[in-house]
Amino acid sequence: MRMLSIKSPDFELQFGKIVDDRRESDGNIAGQVSSILSDVRGRGDAALSDLTARFDQHALTNDDDWSISAEQCREAFDGLDPKLRDALKLAADRITAYHKDQLPADRDFTDDAGVRLGARWQAVDAAGLYVPGGRAAYPSSLLMNAIPAKVAGVGRLTVTTPTPKGVVNPLVLAAAHIAGVDEIWRVGGAQAIGALAYGTKRIKRVDVVTGPGNAWVAEAKRQLFGVVGIDMVAGPSEILVIADGHNEPDWIAADLLSQAEHDPDAQSILITDDAAFAAQVEDRIDVQAAMLSTHKTARKSWDDHGVIIIVETLDQAIPLANRLAAEHVELAVEDPKPLFEGIRHAGSIFIGRYAPEAVGDYVAGPNHVLPTGRRARFASGLSVLDFMKRSSFIELDEAALQAIGPAAIALAEAEGLPAHAKSIEARLK
Amino acid sequence: MRMLSIKSPDFELQFGKIVDDRRESDGNIAGQVSSILSDVRGRGDAALSDLTARFDQHALTNDDDWSISAEQCREAFDGLDPKLRDALKLAADRITAYHKDQLPADRDFTDDAGVRLGARWQAVDAAGLYVPGGRAAYPSSLLMNAIPAKVAGVGRLTVTTPTPKGVVNPLVLAAAHIAGVDEIWRVGGAQAIGALAYGTKRIKRVDVVTGPGNAWVAEAKRQLFGVVGIDMVAGPSEILVIADGHNEPDWIAADLLSQAEHDPDAQSILITDDAAFAAQVEDRIDVQAAMLSTHKTARKSWDDHGVIIIVETLDQAIPLANRLAAEHVELAVEDPKPLFEGIRHAGSIFIGRYAPEAVGDYVAGPNHVLPTGRRARFASGLSVLDFMKRSSFIELDEAALQAIGPAAIALAEAEGLPAHAKSIEARLK
Repeated sequence: MRMLSIKSPDFELQFGKIVDDRRESDGNIAGQVSSILSDVRGRGDAALSDLTARFDQHALTNDDDWSISAEQCREAFDGLDPKLRDALKLAADRITAYHKDQLPADRDFTDDAGVRLGARWQAVDAAGLYVPGGRAAYPSSLLMNAIPAKVAGVGRLTVTTPTPKGVVNPLVLAAAHIAGVDEIWRVGGAQAIGALAYGTKRIKRVDVVTGPGNAWVAEAKRQLFGVVGIDMVAGPSEILVIADGHNEPDWIAADLLSQAEHDPDAQSILITDDAAFAAQVEDRIDVQAAMLSTHKTARKSWDDHGVIIIVETLDQAIPLANRLAAEHVELAVEDPKPLFEGIRHAGSIFIGRYAPEAVGDYVAGPNHVLPTGRRARFASGLSVLDFMKRSSFIELDEAALQAIGPAAIALAEAEGLPAHAKSIEARLK
Repeated sequence: MRMLSIKSPDFELQFGKIVDDRRESDGNIAGQVSSILSDVRGRGDAALSDLTARFDQHALTNDDDWSISAEQCREAFDGLDPKLRDALKLAADRITAYHKDQLPADRDFTDDAGVRLGARWQAVDAAGLYVPGGRAAYPSSLLMNAIPAKVAGVGRLTVTTPTPKGVVNPLVLAAAHIAGVDEIWRVGGAQAIGALAYGTKRIKRVDVVTGPGNAWVAEAKRQLFGVVGIDMVAGPSEILVIADGHNEPDWIAADLLSQAEHDPDAQSILITDDAAFAAQVEDRIDVQAAMLSTHKTARKSWDDHGVIIIVETLDQAIPLANRLAAEHVELAVEDPKPLFEGIRHAGSIFIGRYAPEAVGDYVAGPNHVLPTGRRARFASGLSVLDFMKRSSFIELDEAALQAIGPAAIALAEAEGLPAHAKSIEARLK
């Protein structure tokens, strides 16, 4: 953990380093990912079978090895502890409600020149959702990816997820049941993204691929950008907590650890105007971390990437927050309004002392797939828009073309495009 | 040109080939682009200077060699033929009006559980617009990229454009003046995209890079996706005209040629239910093409990529149009409504006999930067949204957390994330 004071002479240097720190291995995996994608494109299911045997120690032999049925998902859901079932349902209902409210409106109007103009939103035909295996196999992630697609009106929802050594996660299956997923394929890694983008004999091509994954999955998505639509490439998670000295240190410590326990490369940052409070939080982190089953990950994240910044006044936190452009920003202060108004770059903002980030991970409603690694400067969280596209439209009658056509002819001629000019001129004769 | 009839036994095979035809050299340029980007990242302006001397035969020595001033842009505008100046102004005004109407609304509401939820849209701080040199140096492209950024509220608009052998295009400068561009740098190719994304001593980093370009520019954007926000990777242009037999063959021929004259790899497709009309259009294309100053390009595009498809009834055009997912679709038919309603995948739709595509390139208002190469399946034209991002927000008081917190605790525990659970539990005590 690094402790910085805004008053220290090298603050700008130290803070700049934190802003620029990428916490991601660029790796030299572009070449390997490119080979895997070519292999899947060329050999289809045979390539998937070979790669899944190699990376997941899972043999794709019978149909059951390849996919998980809707029946299995329903059974997994029915087999859940009722409390957990209700929690999943509450989460799904609230996520659905928030995303329904997000649906964009079409436009259709006629302007003064008599030109009818507009835009129409429609869902893509099919979406592929990647659900990671291992540490990050979260049912909440499945809900957060599948529900916006479903609300958007996507016709076919395909999930791919690795099942290392054949082990499936019943919670993920239960979430797939609730979300109404159509197909689940037991394939992971870059090869799964290739199958979704190019299609194979078994796995039909989709139009958009979303969902979190490791560096290989992220690189595959980057390489296939344009072959399919993809959501933002995601890196390790992060939280920025802006807190005054009137918080319970225990609460803020838990918030910082809740991000740290995700990933050793996750980053938790506290900005406060109260140095004594900061010291208390640091103490509580040590005590709490020791008791967590996720101790090792949380400890490593906090030790390697944790930051506490002491400012003189809380308004100094605003420009710092904007440079950090964090995935999650908590405003645990007496009057959050000025901070909320000043923050331009953040994936999601949690307002007030009773809004821990974890509530947004599960049940608040907004999407928990958010831009990481300072990408909130230009990117947004996952939404129904990621599963829709917009067609503009233009309708003119002869009078409308008379009104605006001549200007288009002048511009086409100036650009050296005579057939453009001719296509309008012919109609104005 | 290929002529297909929906009644022919190999129609599906032939049509499938047209759908799958990419018309883009994948090329083996990924490695070269990656080297250029590393060079720009490492050596900054020195790399730009070397690469610009090599690729554009333009020496970046004095400040004037590096950039074009606002003064020069104003002079270029003032020096235009008044008719052209008015045409550019009309175009800018109409594009501005359409894009203002596109600005997204913020959301802010409190639900039954007492949870305040919402989303806030804000512009990115800075945008970089690529304007190609040579054949595709179009002032209309500058307007179509710069105006949505300006309307979105972007603070700094940076243009990069190559000036091969030092030659600048006064029309592009005039458009930059109208659009209120802040900086113009005389750099092109992958190196310009690298400079915009990483920043150099002279050229400040931006948050989003948009604009058309050749294969090198497109590959650079793909590689930098995630370092900056980018718009869709664009390929050669295309038009699909659906026309009945009651059109003037001359009009439709001009429409098909207006796409073909852009690029030898552009594609023009006519679907009609009238074979005799199709033959007339084909004749008119031969006559008109011969008279164009863009003859060579238009002829090559039509010969290599042009398609005429004869259907029995116009409603058969709908599924074909959806598989083609064309950038531009014209509906030159007596009753365009059923076709308009059936078409799910299209960049922009031109309705009626008096809506030639060229009017959309310049003055209609909607953006002319549209998804190509079947990408309208999942992508949309450029809009103010490409220059904005959305932060979600969540506010809870103690009662709201009591209402939804327990479900989040159950899910966090099931996912094996105890600090998540703890951050909520601590507040509910």
